Amino acid sequence: MNRATLVKNIFKKKSLLCVGLDLDIQKLPEGVTPLEFNKAIIDVTREYAVAYKPNLAFYECLGMEGWRLFEDTVKYIGNDHFIIADAKRGDIGNTSRYYAQTFFETYPCDAITIAPYMGEDSVKPFIGFEGKWAIVLGLTSNLGAKDFQMLPIQNEYLYQKVIQKVAEWGSDNELMFVVGATQASMIEEIRKIIPHHFLLVPGVGAQGGSLDEVVKHGMTQEGGLLINASRSILYASSGNDWKEAAGAEARSMQYQMSHYF
Amino acid sequence: MNRATLVKNIFKKKSLLCVGLDLDIQKLPEGVTPLEFNKAIIDVTREYAVAYKPNLAFYECLGMEGWRLFEDTVKYIGNDHFIIADAKRGDIGNTSRYYAQTFFETYPCDAITIAPYMGEDSVKPFIGFEGKWAIVLGLTSNLGAKDFQMLPIQNEYLYQKVIQKVAEWGSDNELMFVVGATQASMIEEIRKIIPHHFLLVPGVGAQGGSLDEVVKHGMTQEGGLLINASRSILYASSGNDWKEAAGAEARSMQYQMSHYF
Repeated sequence: MNRATLVKNIFKKKSLLCVGLDLDIQKLPEGVTPLEFNKAIIDVTREYAVAYKPNLAFYECLGMEGWRLFEDTVKYIGNDHFIIADAKRGDIGNTSRYYAQTFFETYPCDAITIAPYMGEDSVKPFIGFEGKWAIVLGLTSNLGAKDFQMLPIQNEYLYQKVIQKVAEWGSDNELMFVVGATQASMIEEIRKIIPHHFLLVPGVGAQGGSLDEVVKHGMTQEGGLLINASRSILYASSGNDWKEAAGAEARSMQYQMSHYF
Repeated sequence: MNRATLVKNIFKKKSLLCVGLDLDIQKLPEGVTPLEFNKAIIDVTREYAVAYKPNLAFYECLGMEGWRLFEDTVKYIGNDHFIIADAKRGDIGNTSRYYAQTFFETYPCDAITIAPYMGEDSVKPFIGFEGKWAIVLGLTSNLGAKDFQMLPIQNEYLYQKVIQKVAEWGSDNELMFVVGATQASMIEEIRKIIPHHFLLVPGVGAQGGSLDEVVKHGMTQEGGLLINASRSILYASSGNDWKEAAGAEARSMQYQMSHYF
């Protein structure tokens, strides 16, 4: 999905919502198969979300069945939503090319998340596919972000260096960055480095980030944000009303977002 | 596989050799299936290698068939060799746990490679499994290593900070580090930080690193090195003698290594 279509969808729906399909089989409602669960979540959130983000960890751990589930889930989402393979891949050039092939060709995803530690030749193979995106980790939402990402280097933090450098490797039509909502106050600084790039923002919801803060510091004239919620939607209720509760939570998030348009 | 068994195997075989099973289907000999190829490579290298390292990129890109191939390959290797899932995973704690489950439980690997950018809670879920190892990227063998890993921080390089910090999160019975052979001269400095950890060393062979240099700077009384060769063994010949050529290359590497014992 190219930038124009993504932006059009965002404005049509007045939504920045990305639903994280982090299927935890230990939390499945009784008698519901993983695929039924994903389909139901997609059904009740489709109207409010502009993007879906299956995290591969939750699929891979099921072995082959998990990959079939991933495939079926991506197929069920279809072409009207931006699909992010949250895989956090990255390897030497020769190898990264195969990861790009996996998620851009074998599976019809629009984007893949990438860990930047191995540098340019690990990121570049994901760039240059028509309508496909590399979403590189900038500043993540977890506690461990402080260990390396926030190391000071020449009056900056490492994550700022990473964002600056990676932004040189492709345009803002093919590169996005992950910036955690728990770091909302940093987004203002990040916007000085990359005013026009889309940011994928996890950490609103279960991880405690504030939607208001993220939008205040990060939103652009094109939207410029994909704000992810996973557990707060998928497991909004552990009762029989799980489906309705998930839909209501997505609707509520979209409603909050609509005020910013 | 625990440390004692790994060290015993290394001394019994006088070998530090890890064979990288980077199956490139574009380079398969005619009429040979991917599984037949892997089995043949394993057959002719089994005697000389102490470890195998399938890189997941080359399997995932084949979709479900690729995961079946990975499963069959790991099963065929068996329990006498140290099996490294070269997957370069890492995510927030809640998610990394599922990656650990994938490669330590769903598939019977001994180790998984991990990207450290997300910090402590992304690495720790891989630690604490009996006889299982987290192999964290320290200084990689590719050109892009200079982009971030070699950024100077307070009189050190980032990769030194990473190795120091990660080494605090577990013992040398459950943690190893990736250090590229193309950076052999740095291994001396790295050994001052982690004198007893095993290092997984890619980059000998196709990428141009020197075996002699790596051993000189990195070998310990226990061996302390797993030296990986992938393409130089798998594609030693593109002719009908590919199998014999692969075996000969592995034997030659083991023979060179035997002089250091």
